[in-house]
Amino acid sequence: MMKHNLEETISLLTRTPAALNSLLRDLPEAWTSRNEGENTWSAFDIVGHLVYGERTDWMPRVTMILQFGESQAFVPFDRWGQDRESKGRTLGQLLDEFARLRSENLRDLRELNLRQEDLERRGLHPSLGTVTLSQLLATWAIHDLTHLHQLSRVMAYQYRDAVGPWSIYLGVLNCAGHSSS
Amino acid sequence: MMKHNLEETISLLTRTPAALNSLLRDLPEAWTSRNEGENTWSAFDIVGHLVYGERTDWMPRVTMILQFGESQAFVPFDRWGQDRESKGRTLGQLLDEFARLRSENLRDLRELNLRQEDLERRGLHPSLGTVTLSQLLATWAIHDLTHLHQLSRVMAYQYRDAVGPWSIYLGVLNCAGHSSS
Repeated sequence: MMKHNLEETISLLTRTPAALNSLLRDLPEAWTSRNEGENTWSAFDIVGHLVYGERTDWMPRVTMILQFGESQAFVPFDRWGQDRESKGRTLGQLLDEFARLRSENLRDLRELNLRQEDLERRGLHPSLGTVTLSQLLATWAIHDLTHLHQLSRVMAYQYRDAVGPWSIYLGVLNCAGHSSS
Repeated sequence: MMKHNLEETISLLTRTPAALNSLLRDLPEAWTSRNEGENTWSAFDIVGHLVYGERTDWMPRVTMILQFGESQAFVPFDRWGQDRESKGRTLGQLLDEFARLRSENLRDLRELNLRQEDLERRGLHPSLGTVTLSQLLATWAIHDLTHLHQLSRVMAYQYRDAVGPWSIYLGVLNCAGHSSS
């Protein structure tokens, strides 16, 4: 079991924009614009959600913990906030924006020079209650992975019939999704 | 629902090596060498499996269908074949090898100049029975996605405790896996 390690968290956070860019840029829209049915997300929606999170969720919550501790709860995250973020934009633009914002956020995070005792500082999540800065940063990284997991499932879903009898061997086609992602 | 489309399949197959390279190269081993427990795969094992598939599975089966049709079954795929492939090699070497083999295989696939009627040609899978060339090629692409799905889950698993109470919101931590991947 890994404990949270700030450098390992940053290593992963650093790589996600380039990984999504390599996978999705200029891919036919048949892969990137389709979802799994009503009220579900396409690859395009997922990248918009990641952009929105960079802007409104992660670093603002880091700042909240450092400034207010448990005395003030985080602003709840708007799970459909990417609708505003994505409107009228192309996937290429969203990928560029995600890379730019992530890079700026990681620069800001490094500039905080967090020490081990800072990572134990506590904040107040509006529904989860007390959380630590360490948990918030670990969640930022695993949030990337949860959406990579979702993205691979959403894209695979488009070929669920095309693969014919092989579908029983393809784990991703037997994933019903988990919570909202 | 997407029908199988050869160009869309190739678009996806083309991008996987670079996406895995962006995500995994030089990532700390804490992320890439750990698995989900006994008889499960790490990120390193998954890349080895993809290399092994490029060498022994996909294009050899394409050739089988074109040469023998249903008269001769495919050689069963060795799900632990990557143990030989990976031994003594670094993740960086496996990523390079995957990119090289995939590129060669897609060049060979394009050189076949497959027409729509070729895609309907049939082969014999050792356990699934009759399959078409179209289904085989669609499966090649979705096999990439099933392992991207697995990879994101295996890596997320390493931080399952580090995220604290957020685990209930992170879909990837609530994925029990599906079949072998």
